[in-house]
Amino acid sequence: MIVLGLDPAIRTTGYGVIALEENRYRILDCGVIRNGARLAHTECLRRLAGGVRELVNAFHPDVASLESPFVGDNARTAIILGMARGAILTALAEAGVPAYAYPPTVAKRAVVGVSLARKEQVAMMMAAEFGIAVENIPDDATDALALAMCHAQRAAQKQIDLIGKPL
Amino acid sequence: MIVLGLDPAIRTTGYGVIALEENRYRILDCGVIRNGARLAHTECLRRLAGGVRELVNAFHPDVASLESPFVGDNARTAIILGMARGAILTALAEAGVPAYAYPPTVAKRAVVGVSLARKEQVAMMMAAEFGIAVENIPDDATDALALAMCHAQRAAQKQIDLIGKPL
Repeated sequence: MIVLGLDPAIRTTGYGVIALEENRYRILDCGVIRNGARLAHTECLRRLAGGVRELVNAFHPDVASLESPFVGDNARTAIILGMARGAILTALAEAGVPAYAYPPTVAKRAVVGVSLARKEQVAMMMAAEFGIAVENIPDDATDALALAMCHAQRAAQKQIDLIGKPL
Repeated sequence: MIVLGLDPAIRTTGYGVIALEENRYRILDCGVIRNGARLAHTECLRRLAGGVRELVNAFHPDVASLESPFVGDNARTAIILGMARGAILTALAEAGVPAYAYPPTVAKRAVVGVSLARKEQVAMMMAAEFGIAVENIPDDATDALALAMCHAQRAAQKQIDLIGKPL
């Protein structure tokens, strides 16, 4: 099973692709889709959807795992975050890739064992799991990899219905 | 010039297509993209993007005119509205159709002359302008038609930079 983890935002969307084969995890790719601060929102959305489509074509993920949207109290920020999620979920839906959402605390607990782990702890645990140097995991891709790992663990344990929320 | 007006929401997105030729307005189409209450968000987004793409392929609009997002104080609602806008703006950007946003009050004033016009007044004025029966304008397409008209008027008067906000 191949899982595409995504941590969406209009300017910086982290991604991580992992494979689960016979109870072993392998990392296939991780990185960041970056949109410059001066790019119009429409152009950002076009690049997010295009980037997701490229990842789908390159790795043929069976499923995508996203961070549950952080619902703060700023509705203007929420609309912009929603637009980024909309572009990404549209690209996934058009490619036939189902999407699940997990709160960041659940993803961290899945990887590190505690809900409030720091980003560096998450990165170190994943580097160890995948057998790569922690420097090879960009900061902004850490959460996306944790989300991918979180969904893969639940799928392996057939626990998706317990926690994962289908979008 | 052909303008595609859009009034986006996850369940009910109104649209209206008008042509401005030698200072005369013609209506080409109006209607609603409806998503049933039980459809998953991802499926709604796929249908919104697909619907916009169909409209672009059918009418080749030069520009799209959207309602400025209503920023209330409910961040959860704002994320869902943002997702609908994200799907629609992605489809427009991928088709190379530039998008502008206008507040509903500005669109109503453009059509009726007053900012707080009721929806029926807006529909009646547009039916008169286009020479069609008011019954042919679905309620949920009224605002979209007014947005298209609003942008077309400003474009005709070369006033876009005064009010229209490019997205």
